[in-house]
Amino acid sequence: MYSFTCDYTEGAHPLILQRLAETNMIQEPGYGEDSFCESAKAKIRKAIDRPDADIFFLVGGTQTNCTIIDGLLEGCQGVLAAQTGHIAVHEAGAIEFSGHKVLTLPQHQGKIDAAELKAWLEGFYADETYPHMVQPGMVYISFPTEYGTIYSRAELEDISSVCKQYSLPLFIDGARLGYGLASPAADIDLPTLAGLCDVFYIGGTKVGALCGEAVVFPNGDAPKHFFTHIKMHGALLAKGRLLGIQFDTLFTDNLYLKISEHAIKMAGKVKTIFESAGIPFFIDSPTNQQFPILTSEQMSALEGKIAFEIWEKLPDGRFVTRFATSWATTHEAIEELRLVIN
Amino acid sequence: MYSFTCDYTEGAHPLILQRLAETNMIQEPGYGEDSFCESAKAKIRKAIDRPDADIFFLVGGTQTNCTIIDGLLEGCQGVLAAQTGHIAVHEAGAIEFSGHKVLTLPQHQGKIDAAELKAWLEGFYADETYPHMVQPGMVYISFPTEYGTIYSRAELEDISSVCKQYSLPLFIDGARLGYGLASPAADIDLPTLAGLCDVFYIGGTKVGALCGEAVVFPNGDAPKHFFTHIKMHGALLAKGRLLGIQFDTLFTDNLYLKISEHAIKMAGKVKTIFESAGIPFFIDSPTNQQFPILTSEQMSALEGKIAFEIWEKLPDGRFVTRFATSWATTHEAIEELRLVIN
Amino acid sequence: MYSFTCDYTEGAHPLILQRLAETNMIQEPGYGEDSFCESAKAKIRKAIDRPDADIFFLVGGTQTNCTIIDGLLEGCQGVLAAQTGHIAVHEAGAIEFSGHKVLTLPQHQGKIDAAELKAWLEGFYADETYPHMVQPGMVYISFPTEYGTIYSRAELEDISSVCKQYSLPLFIDGARLGYGLASPAADIDLPTLAGLCDVFYIGGTKVGALCGEAVVFPNGDAPKHFFTHIKMHGALLAKGRLLGIQFDTLFTDNLYLKISEHAIKMAGKVKTIFESAGIPFFIDSPTNQQFPILTSEQMSALEGKIAFEIWEKLPDGRFVTRFATSWATTHEAIEELRLVIN
Amino acid sequence: MYSFTCDYTEGAHPLILQRLAETNMIQEPGYGEDSFCESAKAKIRKAIDRPDADIFFLVGGTQTNCTIIDGLLEGCQGVLAAQTGHIAVHEAGAIEFSGHKVLTLPQHQGKIDAAELKAWLEGFYADETYPHMVQPGMVYISFPTEYGTIYSRAELEDISSVCKQYSLPLFIDGARLGYGLASPAADIDLPTLAGLCDVFYIGGTKVGALCGEAVVFPNGDAPKHFFTHIKMHGALLAKGRLLGIQFDTLFTDNLYLKISEHAIKMAGKVKTIFESAGIPFFIDSPTNQQFPILTSEQMSALEGKIAFEIWEKLPDGRFVTRFATSWATTHEAIEELRLVIN
Repeated sequence: MYSFTCDYTEGAHPLILQRLAETNMIQEPGYGEDSFCESAKAKIRKAIDRPDADIFFLVGGTQTNCTIIDGLLEGCQGVLAAQTGHIAVHEAGAIEFSGHKVLTLPQHQGKIDAAELKAWLEGFYADETYPHMVQPGMVYISFPTEYGTIYSRAELEDISSVCKQYSLPLFIDGARLGYGLASPAADIDLPTLAGLCDVFYIGGTKVGALCGEAVVFPNGDAPKHFFTHIKMHGALLAKGRLLGIQFDTLFTDNLYLKISEHAIKMAGKVKTIFESAGIPFFIDSPTNQQFPILTSEQMSALEGKIAFEIWEKLPDGRFVTRFATSWATTHEAIEELRLVIN
Repeated sequence: MYSFTCDYTEGAHPLILQRLAETNMIQEPGYGEDSFCESAKAKIRKAIDRPDADIFFLVGGTQTNCTIIDGLLEGCQGVLAAQTGHIAVHEAGAIEFSGHKVLTLPQHQGKIDAAELKAWLEGFYADETYPHMVQPGMVYISFPTEYGTIYSRAELEDISSVCKQYSLPLFIDGARLGYGLASPAADIDLPTLAGLCDVFYIGGTKVGALCGEAVVFPNGDAPKHFFTHIKMHGALLAKGRLLGIQFDTLFTDNLYLKISEHAIKMAGKVKTIFESAGIPFFIDSPTNQQFPILTSEQMSALEGKIAFEIWEKLPDGRFVTRFATSWATTHEAIEELRLVIN
Repeated sequence: MYSFTCDYTEGAHPLILQRLAETNMIQEPGYGEDSFCESAKAKIRKAIDRPDADIFFLVGGTQTNCTIIDGLLEGCQGVLAAQTGHIAVHEAGAIEFSGHKVLTLPQHQGKIDAAELKAWLEGFYADETYPHMVQPGMVYISFPTEYGTIYSRAELEDISSVCKQYSLPLFIDGARLGYGLASPAADIDLPTLAGLCDVFYIGGTKVGALCGEAVVFPNGDAPKHFFTHIKMHGALLAKGRLLGIQFDTLFTDNLYLKISEHAIKMAGKVKTIFESAGIPFFIDSPTNQQFPILTSEQMSALEGKIAFEIWEKLPDGRFVTRFATSWATTHEAIEELRLVIN
Repeated sequence: MYSFTCDYTEGAHPLILQRLAETNMIQEPGYGEDSFCESAKAKIRKAIDRPDADIFFLVGGTQTNCTIIDGLLEGCQGVLAAQTGHIAVHEAGAIEFSGHKVLTLPQHQGKIDAAELKAWLEGFYADETYPHMVQPGMVYISFPTEYGTIYSRAELEDISSVCKQYSLPLFIDGARLGYGLASPAADIDLPTLAGLCDVFYIGGTKVGALCGEAVVFPNGDAPKHFFTHIKMHGALLAKGRLLGIQFDTLFTDNLYLKISEHAIKMAGKVKTIFESAGIPFFIDSPTNQQFPILTSEQMSALEGKIAFEIWEKLPDGRFVTRFATSWATTHEAIEELRLVIN
């Protein structure tokens, strides 16, 4: 049986394991002060073309979102996000645990709209009672979104422009960043993305690493006590080398993008398989997550052969499902899927 | 140059890396629901002789302390700990971030005293204003302590008994648990320790793993929503397999204790080297951390050859230093130390 | 100029001021342990027909909501409320500050619907990812709602029944409780309301007091450390007598309901005045808040004579406005309104 | 029976009650935007000789401490205070509830020492592990202290100077400010105190008001969202007029200092009574709290006639007691005390 349930079903890219083994007995200081982290940071700074960027390595996505958001917000400020944003739904209230409200905006295939963001802010400040409400303090978007969609350069520029107008930092959750940038639909690259936001992270967990997310402040303006802040959030890894080695490997010889491109190619095949069978999609996703709408019969046919995730049940009895590819998706898995669907 | 600065200067035990490589492309579900975690839990339950224990795998120490403590305390309760307890000093206020005060007790070579604990509690409730103060809600001790010392069975029984009398859960921070249990000075084993507390964790990060701490509720009475609570704390690893594989390996063929014994043996050699040179110790530690008191001259002699940590400066100008051994300490390092000190 | 902007524009009912003056130099202990608080509690227990109720006096509404909600929820639990609930909108994130998410339900003229609540809960637990989400921990409703509407007995019974089924405490925010109970549209009294929820509060600030809200646990099952919890929330008044005297007065000779009835009578007159002038209402409110829809011209006519609140601007250019009456509304104010509107 | 147990056993100064009655039916906006608050602020600005000061009225002491401290600290910062500081002991963990650690310094009759503060800070930054610890973010002192003692001008200048050197805001808890300033031992006045700190509050609850504390940022540099922050802390009183009227009255015709002087005069009489009887004191307090050391026999003699507070039991069996006077202390009470003691 092959699984397309998510993009974290395997371990790590083999080059990462190899590098972990090679460096295993080298003695290095803890807490991210090792030479691997330094090397990885240098490579990331080069990849984003920002020599002064502040970079920190954290372990997982929810942790990273919460640490960044709580690090940038003042007490009574909240973070604006799409209703479907990961922080609004699937992080068990981590943002609220740190004291901040997630202020939700309408979503369009997982994306927020610059004009609606602006209208929200105008409406907020037009309401005389606004000092009694949570103050907007930053904007969160994910690239790609939870629905696999991506913002165009123009859309990002518009959002960025509204953020600047209202002095709101723009934060891009890049848990699946590679899969967004590697999409043929993407019209931006890493340096461009870095130039359009105030902080973002490069997801490792879902893109080839065992764990790890690289937080980047492109302008080198991380909050003063951000190291201590990470520690306070329980997000400082003692053996920071584990993260340093992984990101150093991912940013050597363009590995991060190469393996992302593999996932996108595999997703294209998945898409074609369903299309050829006349199966419709819930969303037209250009990245590694595909959302075919299946009938009970079609789902039964897959049972025991192909695993996938049920996303939601439609009123007509069919199911929105999710098939995720990744750096690790094999040709065998694709062929098995083709066999079963056809 | 060899480093004795801490017990997390290397990667992981080679068997762990080997196992990570072997299992790398096996597809498994995320968030700790993989078969490796299940297997590791079964082995730990056996090792502690508690078939019904609830077990959770988290990533790092501060995170684990905060998640457990916040998970067991009610809002206005605090945690009692030695003044030198890790949670009281070196966790950047993670406990306070989660809303709870660390109530400090006097320390004796890093340990709290059952009689003093009892006296504190009696004094607390004797003060008529106690409802205006943070309520004691649990007791935290570390085994071994931050000073490398360990509690005897009798001491643990006394503390446990006071806790029971006052209905306070007893939590044992086992970040270096293996090094405590493997000490010749220890008069308890793992099942005994499990029987004397309400929750503890088995430290992986400092005892052979890349990362990971195994949280154990020996009586199977973890809080109802503890999984969600872990997620909320940003402490739920997506690729839980990374933790499962590591603990499964550490609890196969008694590896956890075997490598701990190595560290203790190496620490014995370190001790002998300093003793032979007539160098005194700040504390008589029976575990993997040794605290020789060095003069500036002695420290200079080590420069460039042996790295270690400066713990504190004494009024007479000498320095308390820390030399930590671990599962990874080599004979070469010991010999180099011997050469320099003699 | 007369103001209908809100129901807290004046000081306190004269009997309260009189009683404050009479008792002023009597020496009493602080923190709610005075004889006035005791007397007030006894009278409230009698009024709700619950001899064992636990009662606490707090100062203001947001504070009371936050203290109750944080007192009843576990860490990763949230509170279910209408999208328009005061805690969801106008409390500056106080609930989130205490670590909890407000989970919002659709509102119908400010009210939630039992069937929708049930559907939400069914949907929540049907989603396999629910352990990754904030857990529902209690239900919040306001009586009357922020739109002046009230739940019928049948509606409350239905909501209460769903709450019981899912073991969710039901909390009724009674900031304007008197104005709800005194409405001719109400088909419940105070003992009935107390029997349908787990905790509620009797609003004083908006119903005749200078400040003060009486929190009631009808079943006498307040959380064990609730006193300390109140203190921790900064909600424990040193001179508790100020609250005790006020509630003792309000619950002597049925004053609380009598002055509430006055407000409702005045609201009826306000309603008639607008109706007679052919002015429509945004909501058909049976309590002390009325929401006529005015044109710019109509608003101009009121300028300088009658103050009111603008609630929202409609797409057609008209304005939803709010006219609130209270225990303090005078016949002169009503006559002036009549004069201007006709 | 007369009570000296604390300084909040009575209601309010009669002029306050009178003013509340006179203004009762005047309609005013809520949330501190009423004309009484404006007038009170103007008078306080004049009294402290700071025309640009930002002033906010809160309800009680713990609430005020927590709102100010949480408002000025960043996430991972803590507040330095004497071990005996109110925030460190008697506020039920309100500071920790808001996420911040109280970092304690030695106390000398309730006071911290500038040299020790400096030494603490030097030691903190000299420790290489300091980024793993809670960062010092502000300094809290109380004037008078919890032991009734007061800082001299020179002491305050020294503390202020260390704070400036380390860019730490200095916050003075003035819950009993009047009783400190009115003491013959005080060598500072209100404008001087305002000039030596960054934020302080003028205690009303214990000095003639029913409730209320006036928070002052003498330099007019309150945090941008402080109003919303107060609301989030549940500390914004709906009928702000209650606070405005009280402080307006207290700062009319120097009432605040006059009634404080009365308390100090009464405390002098209490002191003399005990001294004449040869009864020693635990602390030589120059303010309204006196701490005679009584034997069991002496305490028995007072029973049923004079109430007081037991502070702590001494090893020799005697008791440190507290006798507090206030604006409300009567000559009859003093005479009764004299009668019983002699």
